[in-house]
Amino acid sequence: MTTIDNSKNYCPLINVFTVSPEKHLELVELLKEATEKVMCKLPGYVSANLHISDDKKTITNYAQWATLQDFQNIMKNEEAQKHMKLAASIATGFKPITYNSIWTHANND
Amino acid sequence: MTTIDNSKNYCPLINVFTVSPEKHLELVELLKEATEKVMCKLPGYVSANLHISDDKKTITNYAQWATLQDFQNIMKNEEAQKHMKLAASIATGFKPITYNSIWTHANND
Repeated sequence: MTTIDNSKNYCPLINVFTVSPEKHLELVELLKEATEKVMCKLPGYVSANLHISDDKKTITNYAQWATLQDFQNIMKNEEAQKHMKLAASIATGFKPITYNSIWTHANND
Repeated sequence: MTTIDNSKNYCPLINVFTVSPEKHLELVELLKEATEKVMCKLPGYVSANLHISDDKKTITNYAQWATLQDFQNIMKNEEAQKHMKLAASIATGFKPITYNSIWTHANND
């Protein structure tokens, strides 16, 4: 389970991948493997949350890193780069964006 | 606080707004107002979580509705439509996508 909670000051990374529907499971499996074998072992990893759209054309990863610097470091990590290149070759596009401010509102607030 | 937890079977809606940096706060304030005055009172509302990107060019709302049907209903609600049209007039683009499957992985799993 992942919590979205601005008091923790994590760096959220939302990466929206576009993909041909027939390849969406291949992409999901690769992203799971990258998370379990590589990303989660790197400093600052907090969570990854893969979302499959209703039409199977979009896979969005809502990820959290302890700091922006941690995320920037993994972009230079050789093993992580290998997985990211493979994901890029399966997807038709991807757009990783980091955020620095969160406002949350929930029906139980 | 919001939790991403696939056991709850919520319908996640991730809406990525693009905006001119000088208008990002105007958009954020409008989305906060829409959440607090309209959306949160509609059936099936669970949460809204506004994220401001480091470069202020992207505002992403990670929202949760109880079911996809609840979200489809709010798209037809007159008050909600009024706020969505106003948000569309401030943003340079927006892409709301609903998801039906989530895989979560966290360092405390």
